[in-house]
Amino acid sequence: MSEQLFSYKQLFDFTKSVFQTIGCSDEHADTATKALLSADLRGIDSHGVARLSGYVRLWEAKRINATPDIKIIHETPSTAVVDGDSGLGLVIAPFAMEIAIEKAKQVGTGWVSVQNSNHFGIAAHHAMMPLQYDMMGIAMTNASPLVAPTFSIDKMLGTNPICVAAPAGSEPAFVADLATTTAANGKLEILQRKNADTPTGWVQDADGNSSTDANILKKGGALLPLGGDREHGSHKGYALGAIVDIFSALLSGANYAPWVPPFPAYVPMPAQQPGKGIGHFLGAMRIDAFRPATEFKKDMDHWIQGFRSCRTIPGEEKVLVPGDPERGFEIERMNKGIPLLDVVIEDLNKLAERVSISLLIN
Amino acid sequence: MSEQLFSYKQLFDFTKSVFQTIGCSDEHADTATKALLSADLRGIDSHGVARLSGYVRLWEAKRINATPDIKIIHETPSTAVVDGDSGLGLVIAPFAMEIAIEKAKQVGTGWVSVQNSNHFGIAAHHAMMPLQYDMMGIAMTNASPLVAPTFSIDKMLGTNPICVAAPAGSEPAFVADLATTTAANGKLEILQRKNADTPTGWVQDADGNSSTDANILKKGGALLPLGGDREHGSHKGYALGAIVDIFSALLSGANYAPWVPPFPAYVPMPAQQPGKGIGHFLGAMRIDAFRPATEFKKDMDHWIQGFRSCRTIPGEEKVLVPGDPERGFEIERMNKGIPLLDVVIEDLNKLAERVSISLLIN
Repeated sequence: MSEQLFSYKQLFDFTKSVFQTIGCSDEHADTATKALLSADLRGIDSHGVARLSGYVRLWEAKRINATPDIKIIHETPSTAVVDGDSGLGLVIAPFAMEIAIEKAKQVGTGWVSVQNSNHFGIAAHHAMMPLQYDMMGIAMTNASPLVAPTFSIDKMLGTNPICVAAPAGSEPAFVADLATTTAANGKLEILQRKNADTPTGWVQDADGNSSTDANILKKGGALLPLGGDREHGSHKGYALGAIVDIFSALLSGANYAPWVPPFPAYVPMPAQQPGKGIGHFLGAMRIDAFRPATEFKKDMDHWIQGFRSCRTIPGEEKVLVPGDPERGFEIERMNKGIPLLDVVIEDLNKLAERVSISLLIN
Repeated sequence: MSEQLFSYKQLFDFTKSVFQTIGCSDEHADTATKALLSADLRGIDSHGVARLSGYVRLWEAKRINATPDIKIIHETPSTAVVDGDSGLGLVIAPFAMEIAIEKAKQVGTGWVSVQNSNHFGIAAHHAMMPLQYDMMGIAMTNASPLVAPTFSIDKMLGTNPICVAAPAGSEPAFVADLATTTAANGKLEILQRKNADTPTGWVQDADGNSSTDANILKKGGALLPLGGDREHGSHKGYALGAIVDIFSALLSGANYAPWVPPFPAYVPMPAQQPGKGIGHFLGAMRIDAFRPATEFKKDMDHWIQGFRSCRTIPGEEKVLVPGDPERGFEIERMNKGIPLLDVVIEDLNKLAERVSISLLIN
C-alpha cells in the first residue's frame, strides 16, 4: 500500500480548515488541530489525521458540538469537574489540563475529571502540557467498549489509555503512554492491511475463544486486556482499564463501561446512558511541591541514563526509555514530513469535497 | 507440604510481641501488625507473617530503625514528603496516608511521597484506609530490583505494585492491587514448592533468554514486566513499573531503579545509594471534591453489577471485580483461621526463640 509525504504545515492548514468549516472558532480549531496532529507526528497514525473524517461524521450526526460552552461545574482547591458540552475532546482536554496546571500552581497538584466530552486524540499530547512548568502530567480517557474483561464474552471497557509525563534535566522527558490492552486497535488495522494474523493473546472471538484473526472485532470478537489471559496477568490489564474508567467517568459523571458512546458515527448509541458523553481525567503535579525541581530532574537524568546503559539481550534492540520511539518519530516527521497512506489521502479528499474546502492534493 | 490453621488473634498477639521485642512502641507494633497480617487475611501469603523474620533480620542488620522519628520534610496544601527515618514501612505508610487523608479533607486531594522507608507489606492495606471517609485511595511502592525491562538483561525495577481503592454503595469497594510484572515473586515460590515450571512470559534467564524455571531468580534470572515480551506488551508493564518508581522515589528522594535496597538482609546493599531507603507514594481523593459521594457510589454499584453479570466464557470462572478474591479470603480466614505452612511455623518458632518470646505453637 503506497503512501505520500506531507509537511506538518500542509496537514495543519488542511485540518484547521476542516474544523473551522464545521463551525469551530479559530482558537478551538487551532487547539484541536495541534492535538490531533500530535498523533501523526509521534507515529501513532491510527489516532491522527486519519480520524479527521470520523470526527466530522460525529459532528454531522449531532454528537459533536462545534461551539461548546466548556465549563467547570464543581471545584475545590485541588480538583474540578468540567462539563465539555459535547465538544471535541481535542479541545476539552487541553482546557481541563490548563485548569489542573493552575490548581497545581496554587496548591501543589490539580486534578480534573471531565464529563460530556468526545475522543481526545492521544493522551500524551495532554499529559505533556505541564512539563514546561516543571510539573508531571497525567492523562487518561475512557473509550468505546472493545475489551472483554478476564473470563468475559462481553466487551465492557475501552482501550482506556494512561499517560504519565515527567520532566528530566539534560535528558528528554519521560513519557509513558499506553493502552491498557495487549495491543491497541491501530495494531490490528496494520495487520489487516497486510492480511496477517495477530499473535495469540491480543484478541478473542465472539464466544470468548482465543483467536489470531486481525478482523475479529468486525465478527463480534474483543480486544484482550494487557496480559492476554489469566495465566499471563490479564486480570491486571483489566483492573488498569477499570481504574481509568473510574477516574475518567465515575468521578465526573460521564458514561462508563459498555455504555461509553462509540467512536464510529454509524454505530448506534447504547440504549442506556448512565452519564454524559465520554470521560477524561487530567492531572498536574508541581515537582517542587515535593522537592526542588533541579534535584528531581538530576535524578531523572541519572535514572534515564541507567536504563539506556542496560546490557541488551543479544539480537534485540537497545533498551528504550518510555517516550523514545515517539520522540524519534516527531523529530523525523517534523523534518521530513508525515507519511499518509493512499486510502487516508483519498478519505481526506472526499472529506474536503463534502465540507467544501480545497483538496489535500489533486 | 502440610499446614495448620491459626486464628487472627493468635497471629496478631505473636506478631505484635515480636515487634515490641525489637523495640517498637505499643502503637507502632499495633500498626505494623495490622498492616502485615492484612496480607495473610487477604490471601497474599507471600507478604504476610511469613516475612516477619525477614523484617527482624533487617532490624538486626541495622537497616530497620524500630524507634523512628517519622516526619514531614516538605509540604504544600495538597502534597507532602515524609522522611521515614529508616523505620518499618508497615508503620510509615499508614502515617503518610493519614497525612494524605487530612490534606484531602482540606483541599480535595492529598498526595504524599515517602523516602527513607522499608517494605510496607501489601499496597491494598494502605490504599483502603481512605475508603471509610468516602475517599478513593492510591498506594504504590518501589522494591528490590528483580525485573528486567523489555530487551534488558539487567534487573532494573522491583515488582512495583499499584493499588487503587474506590468506595461503592451497597456493593463492596473496588480494590485493584497489582504488581506491574506478569507474576509476582510469591507465585514463583508456590511453583518452587510444587517443583513445577512457570508458564512462558513470567521469567528470563541470566542471559535474557525466555525461561520456565521457577528457580531462575537464584540463578541470575529476572521477572518480566506485565505483558511478558514486546509482542505482548511488556514495554507497557515496564512503563508502569517505571511510573511507580518515579512517583515513589524520584518525587521523594528515595533510592530508585537498581539501587533500591534489597529485602533479604543477607543481600549486600547496592554500592551506589542515590537516595534514602525505599520509596512509597500514597494518595487520597475525596469523592465529593468531584461529585456527591452518593451519586458516585450509586454509579459504582451499577458499574460493579454490570461486570458481575457479564456472560462468562464456557468453562471459566465467573467474571470478577477487582478485590473480590481477596475479600473472599478475608471473610473465610477471619472465620476459620489463617493457614500457615509447616516451614513458616518452624521459621516463626525459631524467630520466637531468637527474640525470647513464647513459641507460636509447641
